[in-house]
Amino acid sequence: MKKIALLPLLFTAIIYAQSNDQKMLADIYKFSLTKSTCYSWLDDLSNKVGSRLSGSVGAEKGVIYTKQQLETLGLDKVYLQEVMVPKWVRGEKETAYILDDKLKINIPICALGGSVATAKSGVTAEVVEVKSLKELETLGEATLKGKIIFYNRPFEPENIDAFKSYGKCVDQRYYGAKEASKYGAVGTIVRSMNFRLDDFPHTGAQSYGDLPKEKHIPTAAISTNAAELLSKKLKENSKLKFYMKLSCQTFDDVLSHNVIGEIKGSEHPEKIMTVGGHLDSWDLADGSHDDGAGVVQSMAVVECFKKLNYKPKNTIRVVLFMNEENGGRGGKKYEDVSRRNDENHIFALESDAGGFSPRGFSFDCDEANFQKVNSWKYLFEPYFIHNFVEGGTGSDIEPLTSNKIVKAGLKPDSQRYFDYHHAANDTFDAVNKRELELGAATMASLLYLFDQYGID
Amino acid sequence: MKKIALLPLLFTAIIYAQSNDQKMLADIYKFSLTKSTCYSWLDDLSNKVGSRLSGSVGAEKGVIYTKQQLETLGLDKVYLQEVMVPKWVRGEKETAYILDDKLKINIPICALGGSVATAKSGVTAEVVEVKSLKELETLGEATLKGKIIFYNRPFEPENIDAFKSYGKCVDQRYYGAKEASKYGAVGTIVRSMNFRLDDFPHTGAQSYGDLPKEKHIPTAAISTNAAELLSKKLKENSKLKFYMKLSCQTFDDVLSHNVIGEIKGSEHPEKIMTVGGHLDSWDLADGSHDDGAGVVQSMAVVECFKKLNYKPKNTIRVVLFMNEENGGRGGKKYEDVSRRNDENHIFALESDAGGFSPRGFSFDCDEANFQKVNSWKYLFEPYFIHNFVEGGTGSDIEPLTSNKIVKAGLKPDSQRYFDYHHAANDTFDAVNKRELELGAATMASLLYLFDQYGID
Repeated sequence: MKKIALLPLLFTAIIYAQSNDQKMLADIYKFSLTKSTCYSWLDDLSNKVGSRLSGSVGAEKGVIYTKQQLETLGLDKVYLQEVMVPKWVRGEKETAYILDDKLKINIPICALGGSVATAKSGVTAEVVEVKSLKELETLGEATLKGKIIFYNRPFEPENIDAFKSYGKCVDQRYYGAKEASKYGAVGTIVRSMNFRLDDFPHTGAQSYGDLPKEKHIPTAAISTNAAELLSKKLKENSKLKFYMKLSCQTFDDVLSHNVIGEIKGSEHPEKIMTVGGHLDSWDLADGSHDDGAGVVQSMAVVECFKKLNYKPKNTIRVVLFMNEENGGRGGKKYEDVSRRNDENHIFALESDAGGFSPRGFSFDCDEANFQKVNSWKYLFEPYFIHNFVEGGTGSDIEPLTSNKIVKAGLKPDSQRYFDYHHAANDTFDAVNKRELELGAATMASLLYLFDQYGID
Repeated sequence: MKKIALLPLLFTAIIYAQSNDQKMLADIYKFSLTKSTCYSWLDDLSNKVGSRLSGSVGAEKGVIYTKQQLETLGLDKVYLQEVMVPKWVRGEKETAYILDDKLKINIPICALGGSVATAKSGVTAEVVEVKSLKELETLGEATLKGKIIFYNRPFEPENIDAFKSYGKCVDQRYYGAKEASKYGAVGTIVRSMNFRLDDFPHTGAQSYGDLPKEKHIPTAAISTNAAELLSKKLKENSKLKFYMKLSCQTFDDVLSHNVIGEIKGSEHPEKIMTVGGHLDSWDLADGSHDDGAGVVQSMAVVECFKKLNYKPKNTIRVVLFMNEENGGRGGKKYEDVSRRNDENHIFALESDAGGFSPRGFSFDCDEANFQKVNSWKYLFEPYFIHNFVEGGTGSDIEPLTSNKIVKAGLKPDSQRYFDYHHAANDTFDAVNKRELELGAATMASLLYLFDQYGID
């Protein structure tokens, strides 16, 4: 009898919770589309602070600006976390050209992050075009020595998720110099990581790995149009030469900061839920999509909770990570401090895929929690959020592994991301206000649900 | 016994059909992202043909260009369908300013389609700001006579679907002049149909309804920034004046054309499936999103079928409608001819919501067919197509009602549409190649499925 009598109560409770959740998500989306400060923060971060490469003045201005803004939100705590970061400086604008007999064709080029400079007079050499790192092996030192290696495997256009195409190409950028150097190459250039044929060279991280310093060779990206042109010219004249001059320099590590704000949990203050993006950007633009968007969306999540007067059960921590682009030191430092303090992170969410229309999330968690997330899908349907997948969340939260934790990454529409990624056109005007705000709302909604129902 | 023996066969057949469909969709998406001509067609249509307002030289160039291109595809039939269209000409670029005592502030303005001109010396009057047509009633002739009525109800930002906000505002543009004229107003201006605060005035259709000609008053749109400014200035000085000069003119109707191409059905040639967009655009830009995108996507559907050597069971007809923007004559004419020829249209699909990332379709059909469509959802999941809704497809296919028919409209992501809609920035560079191609693939996939399984 007792069991039967409880059943209607149980149903009532479930329906009540559902409609509460529906109402909360409606409030979150409405707030985000009508009152969120995120777009105005992004305007400041992009147009007043500007580019924020780790170790630069811009990065430090970004730290000060976002800390100040978080301090206006009435959080329980706002503080900086010290982190030593690499300091690499591009120097004078790069120059490059194709020397085809007497013809000189200027080429849009930019050094890759961490590259060494060329000699002051630049480097000039014949070019060997390859489509993969593996091809170097086949060609061998006899062919490659003294040459500039040109990595020209394009993005596969047939992938629906643009990040898949990136994932299948980026080894050329990241390991290109390291591998080519082993065969005596004097420099490498890589086709920009971009679907589109345009004139923007896209920078990005590269690594010499454990090569000794004297083996470090200059490495740069050229625009996709330039890559097409160079490839065509090489077919006509395999003996043409390529000239480039890079003036970049690496200095000693410098002190920088993660910026952290906190709302203390009302029921489980010891359980921590992190939401973040990375504050540093590349130096060619103000990094509005990468990752200004993620920064202001994360700030907007806590703003939304405060303004809606939502008191989270768990501690919500917004973390603006430093140095995602060329070192990942902020993410590592955050995990390191957290582990040493024996903190219990139960959930972490990162936004680092651009301020485009949100489509869903990727999750790094066990099956039970993934099922739980999927049971919330109906709540997201009115907001056109549909794409919940497993695997690959965000590199700043990747180190958080000491406790049982659910990690998530916001998945915006990916089609336009690489039009701007790490290039001079990743600027404020490339971000649509509503798309940015919808992303923030989607993040706040997921955080709210995990706060309400915990992890399994 | 027989029944039991058939069961495994039935399952095999279903699974076979499923995997065939999955393969076909994979082929369609791959073709569209790697080999479709649609982006290059759009480049030509936008940058070589240019703007295509009904009755203009551009519109006729668009007719010739798209017919020529369809003729290269090896269709069974390509032809023009005559349609008489209105010819309205903007004339000299409009000017407008606020006259606030001695201060003169220039205002970005554009006449609405079909508006009459002002006197050559322009019109100057005090301004009454309203937020709705209904407000005119309350204010009455005493307040409105001799004034310029300023409709300033903004887009509601809280709607997730941008078209909902448009639907709730556009009466101000469409009926504003007609209603204000009844109270003796001398002109109307409307806040542009746009979320964003910017400097683009957005034109669009308006109607004087059955008002006698002498009651037609000049009507124009001002940019959202200008609307904010004017509203602010009016609060400071309700006696300020607004000046505008419009030089537009309406001529007699002229002959134009729908452009039609056909693949004859291999099994049911008498059953017709239409896919289309509208060839005309507004005159302020080349209409790359509205509706160059829909035009080239529709052409891409038949290109894809031909190149994949898919032989449709039913007749597939690509229709590029003329005069959607200011008359809808192409759609009406197409239906009229079709009805008179006793044609049997079973399916019609329109793309007229921009070349953005496709999210799904709207459907105008009975419940059985909507359920059928929903049973195909799993096929679309790998392509992130998830949003199948009922109601509101496309205005060119709206007249098709004589037979039992399923109608559908492509639903791309709507957030950025009104940044460009009917404004000078609706240009080729605002369209992303992959987003456009994904739309074409999504349309071809739906058409393929209806071709395979018919309608209920």
